[in-house]
Amino acid sequence: MRLRVGCEFGFESDVPVPMLMLVGVRRDGDYRTVSESTRLDPELPLREYVDGFGNRCWRFTAPVGLLTTRYDAVVAIQGQADAVAPEARLAPAQDLPDESLVFTLPSRQVESDLLMSDAWALFGGTPPTWARVQAVCDWVHGNVRYDAEVSGPATLGSAVGVYQRRSGVCRDFALLAVGFCRALNIPARYTFGYLPDVGVPPPETPMDFHAWFEAFVGGRWYAFDARHNTPRIGRVPIGRGRDAIDAALTTAYGPARLIRMSVWADEVADDHPAR
Amino acid sequence: MRLRVGCEFGFESDVPVPMLMLVGVRRDGDYRTVSESTRLDPELPLREYVDGFGNRCWRFTAPVGLLTTRYDAVVAIQGQADAVAPEARLAPAQDLPDESLVFTLPSRQVESDLLMSDAWALFGGTPPTWARVQAVCDWVHGNVRYDAEVSGPATLGSAVGVYQRRSGVCRDFALLAVGFCRALNIPARYTFGYLPDVGVPPPETPMDFHAWFEAFVGGRWYAFDARHNTPRIGRVPIGRGRDAIDAALTTAYGPARLIRMSVWADEVADDHPAR
Amino acid sequence: MRLRVGCEFGFESDVPVPMLMLVGVRRDGDYRTVSESTRLDPELPLREYVDGFGNRCWRFTAPVGLLTTRYDAVVAIQGQADAVAPEARLAPAQDLPDESLVFTLPSRQVESDLLMSDAWALFGGTPPTWARVQAVCDWVHGNVRYDAEVSGPATLGSAVGVYQRRSGVCRDFALLAVGFCRALNIPARYTFGYLPDVGVPPPETPMDFHAWFEAFVGGRWYAFDARHNTPRIGRVPIGRGRDAIDAALTTAYGPARLIRMSVWADEVADDHPAR
Amino acid sequence: MRLRVGCEFGFESDVPVPMLMLVGVRRDGDYRTVSESTRLDPELPLREYVDGFGNRCWRFTAPVGLLTTRYDAVVAIQGQADAVAPEARLAPAQDLPDESLVFTLPSRQVESDLLMSDAWALFGGTPPTWARVQAVCDWVHGNVRYDAEVSGPATLGSAVGVYQRRSGVCRDFALLAVGFCRALNIPARYTFGYLPDVGVPPPETPMDFHAWFEAFVGGRWYAFDARHNTPRIGRVPIGRGRDAIDAALTTAYGPARLIRMSVWADEVADDHPAR
Repeated sequence: MRLRVGCEFGFESDVPVPMLMLVGVRRDGDYRTVSESTRLDPELPLREYVDGFGNRCWRFTAPVGLLTTRYDAVVAIQGQADAVAPEARLAPAQDLPDESLVFTLPSRQVESDLLMSDAWALFGGTPPTWARVQAVCDWVHGNVRYDAEVSGPATLGSAVGVYQRRSGVCRDFALLAVGFCRALNIPARYTFGYLPDVGVPPPETPMDFHAWFEAFVGGRWYAFDARHNTPRIGRVPIGRGRDAIDAALTTAYGPARLIRMSVWADEVADDHPAR
Repeated sequence: MRLRVGCEFGFESDVPVPMLMLVGVRRDGDYRTVSESTRLDPELPLREYVDGFGNRCWRFTAPVGLLTTRYDAVVAIQGQADAVAPEARLAPAQDLPDESLVFTLPSRQVESDLLMSDAWALFGGTPPTWARVQAVCDWVHGNVRYDAEVSGPATLGSAVGVYQRRSGVCRDFALLAVGFCRALNIPARYTFGYLPDVGVPPPETPMDFHAWFEAFVGGRWYAFDARHNTPRIGRVPIGRGRDAIDAALTTAYGPARLIRMSVWADEVADDHPAR
Repeated sequence: MRLRVGCEFGFESDVPVPMLMLVGVRRDGDYRTVSESTRLDPELPLREYVDGFGNRCWRFTAPVGLLTTRYDAVVAIQGQADAVAPEARLAPAQDLPDESLVFTLPSRQVESDLLMSDAWALFGGTPPTWARVQAVCDWVHGNVRYDAEVSGPATLGSAVGVYQRRSGVCRDFALLAVGFCRALNIPARYTFGYLPDVGVPPPETPMDFHAWFEAFVGGRWYAFDARHNTPRIGRVPIGRGRDAIDAALTTAYGPARLIRMSVWADEVADDHPAR
Repeated sequence: MRLRVGCEFGFESDVPVPMLMLVGVRRDGDYRTVSESTRLDPELPLREYVDGFGNRCWRFTAPVGLLTTRYDAVVAIQGQADAVAPEARLAPAQDLPDESLVFTLPSRQVESDLLMSDAWALFGGTPPTWARVQAVCDWVHGNVRYDAEVSGPATLGSAVGVYQRRSGVCRDFALLAVGFCRALNIPARYTFGYLPDVGVPPPETPMDFHAWFEAFVGGRWYAFDARHNTPRIGRVPIGRGRDAIDAALTTAYGPARLIRMSVWADEVADDHPAR
């Protein structure tokens, strides 16, 4: 199956603003990037580097006035729904791989240290398997209300904030679930990317990026999605990290205003050319 | 000049507790490790790995009962006081090296996003040079009171917490100074390690680890110390990271009690053998 | 300036043959990749990884029968000729960066250990600056005859072989120059990629990949080209390594026949879309 | 079991000579480094870095006159003989991990490309398992005569050279076996380090470093030793690489003479202190 994914942003700024942006699909995914193109208007020097989490970061300086950035890619995926492994066991802490340990620690938006007692009270009775992570997803899915109003780009959410407020957007569902997992010594990382509506009704709101998380179960990372809480087809990760600050769509070192954004993630024919 | 540095910890635990510990001197320092020895009593499997920040992490599982861990090293240093470069300029964000950018972002204990207005109000008028970081150190040094009582291993400090409380230990001085720097777009990283009393009166309290920070000024990292606020001789870093969670002395995945700790960092003769 | 670069290969095989291929432009270049597309016919699983030299390696298994692989990209470059720094000094060995040292050692196709006396006899009298590397290029350019017949994909060239034979293709010019540099303790790495005919007459033979080398002079890597021996515009590196084995266009783990190859590297208009 | 390992070298030089030296035990071994000390006489700046193969490289400049370097360590090992896994299967090339592929390529001292027909003629009939690597070891062990005279530090051996000469030291046994393995598409890496005489008669010649190799079989690296061709206890690797140039005991950028060398690798009591 082929997906066409991408996005276009419009920024406005009164001064030059150095920026970081994550929109390119990760290079280590389970898919093949068939074609890819980027465009900035006006033309600007753009540099890409790969950060410590493997994310492709664009660096550029938004000029005074308007800036449009556009990314467009076609990826070939296998087209299967998220893997499910109910029998997979959680590793005891001493058996976790070294590189997973950073994802057991609290971070700016995931105060897992403060969720410890509640997490063990809520989920300590579940078997130390996939079922424990699923119980976290079920709880978050059942107890947090989706509300696009309470959380926007300008709001710095956090796991504890969502836990208290009980509402938020997909990012907030992910942050709270990650917080519970880490409190339970389960490595969990925040992930965001493109997710098409393959096999599900299209959303009523405009297409947007989607945030989910990955937990380390049975010796590997699996995708979990506390917002949808059902296996989906076609996740194409852009950013991974401890939270939505490590893996931020945009990081601006100054006052740049986002004035326009569109995102696409659609199934296309196998011979679809890039735009 | 040669320093003998090291530490001995006693832990007590009722169940086996997987642990991480940072006590070995970093391998990338400006010194030569002449000798080094480690001891665990009882003998346990101990594995060392290097984390994403270049810290040497020990992994072991504390057994039921008592555990003593001991680290002892002799390092040869150049014996000069911390470098000072008043003319060094801060790089604008677009010129920072890629790998320094992670140290401009908020983290669990450094909520620089919440300190932004206060940081610019307090320090925005200083020249964009070394002087700005020095102004941060001066302010923290002058406005935070040293108080060993308010902060112990069990307390999770944070930059905002210290800013409000205005008291703390060396870690807290460092976290607040790091927070101000990041709010000002200056890459800053928390650092802890051994610091001998070369040329200064010995402290009245028992020798302990010391925490300071490093800021990226004039194209390189310099050590700053908001607690002492005066150049010192003989810093030997153990851990660096975004904050004291990335670079934690110990991280326990279970209830292990620290019952005893001693730390040493002394000048020794050039032919001093390891203990 | 924008360049369109790419290539198409045809392979034929009687058995499935696992292969590595380097055709994608490096990600760390001094240019921006505007668009990029890849195609395999028949459709095959293709995975890309980045090797220890920073090269983008494709892995796939050529099927029984015919296989076409195609890569096409548009890159935006600054359009300046190769930098020349006649005053730049060679670093003494003790001041070379750690990561450059591997490029001072002999390798399969660069037996610099065997070239040591000749290299010092030929070039030891030149000043320890850029001039020494230039003298190597001049010598190789003047003493090796271009001859496309003596060296094909199936021939394993080597610096000593070229030194004895005094003829070869661009790869051979590069290997011998690299060998002399290493014999003189100058870090040198083999490089190949796309090179358009900007400002020079088109070659009489069909467009092909081009091989050159990079030497570490005055604290950074510079491109040198013993084949053309004149600054050129628009080098777009694909592979770097110790020699043409580290950075091989194709590495086949079995008998796959190359039956067809075309390469392009052309200046295009700034609004040129990808094919 | 505890081993005390180390070495002392004497160098003499008429000019300052920048050098690299590998003597410290690798940090990623299956053992714990209990203590470690280094000494240079006269005292010199010594810097350690980790190269691309994970080897700990010392960099220093040997002064005019005499230089003594000494390394001494105590390591705790499990004390089991080399693992043997006769059922383990060789992976087909397409299933090899990316990072193992560099060890399938020819290198300066391992011209596996020239051994291809002979390797397949000799070993192509063996099952594609551990047995194939064992057959290589048996052949090399049975057909190469140990002869300390033909190969010294000053001689650049190579797999093809050993194959023709049929004699050499442990390094040469390893290089030829590695060459056959790579010709058979089996990732193989040259390894050298300390090897005590646990359970075997002490050698008649003075203790020296020992060279062996590692092959990738059944999804992991195993130690093989074509010289001894029998499982041994207590291998402590210092260097790994494509061959004895990547993992050279010493690399001198100038004329430094080795005038004296002693090596030790002995079982010691569990409470043995470092010298």
